[in-house]
Amino acid sequence: MVDSFAAMTNSSPVYESLAMSVRRLIDATIRTEVDHDVIAAATAQIDAVTADLSTALMPGAFGERAVEDGQGIASGNVVVGARNPTAPPLIVNRENDGSVWTEFVLGAAYEGPSGHVHGGVSAMVLDHILGATAHQPGRPAYTGTLTVRYHRKTPLSRPLRARAWVERVEGVKTFAAGEIGDADGPMVSAHGVFIHPRK
Amino acid sequence: MVDSFAAMTNSSPVYESLAMSVRRLIDATIRTEVDHDVIAAATAQIDAVTADLSTALMPGAFGERAVEDGQGIASGNVVVGARNPTAPPLIVNRENDGSVWTEFVLGAAYEGPSGHVHGGVSAMVLDHILGATAHQPGRPAYTGTLTVRYHRKTPLSRPLRARAWVERVEGVKTFAAGEIGDADGPMVSAHGVFIHPRK
Repeated sequence: MVDSFAAMTNSSPVYESLAMSVRRLIDATIRTEVDHDVIAAATAQIDAVTADLSTALMPGAFGERAVEDGQGIASGNVVVGARNPTAPPLIVNRENDGSVWTEFVLGAAYEGPSGHVHGGVSAMVLDHILGATAHQPGRPAYTGTLTVRYHRKTPLSRPLRARAWVERVEGVKTFAAGEIGDADGPMVSAHGVFIHPRK
Repeated sequence: MVDSFAAMTNSSPVYESLAMSVRRLIDATIRTEVDHDVIAAATAQIDAVTADLSTALMPGAFGERAVEDGQGIASGNVVVGARNPTAPPLIVNRENDGSVWTEFVLGAAYEGPSGHVHGGVSAMVLDHILGATAHQPGRPAYTGTLTVRYHRKTPLSRPLRARAWVERVEGVKTFAAGEIGDADGPMVSAHGVFIHPRK
């Protein structure tokens, strides 16, 4: 069953295509070995495209818009936002038991130790999916505490799977746990407390 | 005193300029409200630039290169990499007492809750700077455990300051602490254990 939270992140194909193109550009920017004059020309062309796109910009960040135009409020989210080229973006799937999972590959843009995913990126992914177990439509949850344990290094450019589940709920607090791993077991695990603000 | 770790992230101006241009493009991609035909044209232009940059690409991620060409090994790092458009990038300053600090602004690309920094991004920043207290030239440290506490929401597009310090060292383990805050005090704080692999 597809998570309503993931569905909220859908935006129109034209914005998604633009973001996907920019993701490929980010990867090439990090890895290019072309001559410096080609890089300088590319920089000028990118500046021209940015100017075209900037003739009409929403004020502030994406989630601050007041309009309802079919684009989900999370389209700009740094983890799941279809319009955010910095986001992988993750697609979060929800099971009937309240657990969530996602499968993804992180490329050169997410590097920490040579050839490996930055530990902070793993923490970010876990914060998001543990939080997703506590989210309910119209009732967001915010992270109170997150504890992340690193068991072994996480490789770039390899299929990864992350999952999270609720351990217990006490009043406004949801205690969640989760992990990132592959067929050989977990690489990073986490526990977190997520809080529903009192209305 | 400028951190040697930060100095290692320097890359040549042409690569830095390209990455800075792509960062502006990322922001415009998230926030643009131009007509769909302009977005489609922009997408095609970006794909052409990516093709130009991709005529020579290093295999794998940046840190996996075997060459010594003056570009620091951390130039592709997702937090501090001058060549990585996904990185803010942070500039980490080190004091004589071993503590580190950085000042930065996070824009629309780092959004979680509407108008605010994603909690996972704060965790990523803290993982990096706490880890930086344990790093020594030629002797990297890896995160063992990181615990992050969220005190109040962190706004986008406002000056933030983060700092980290060593609490104690026990054999191969460095116990570090740190926080992200502003003039009103801390927003997010963290404790972490960082491990130097035995040689």
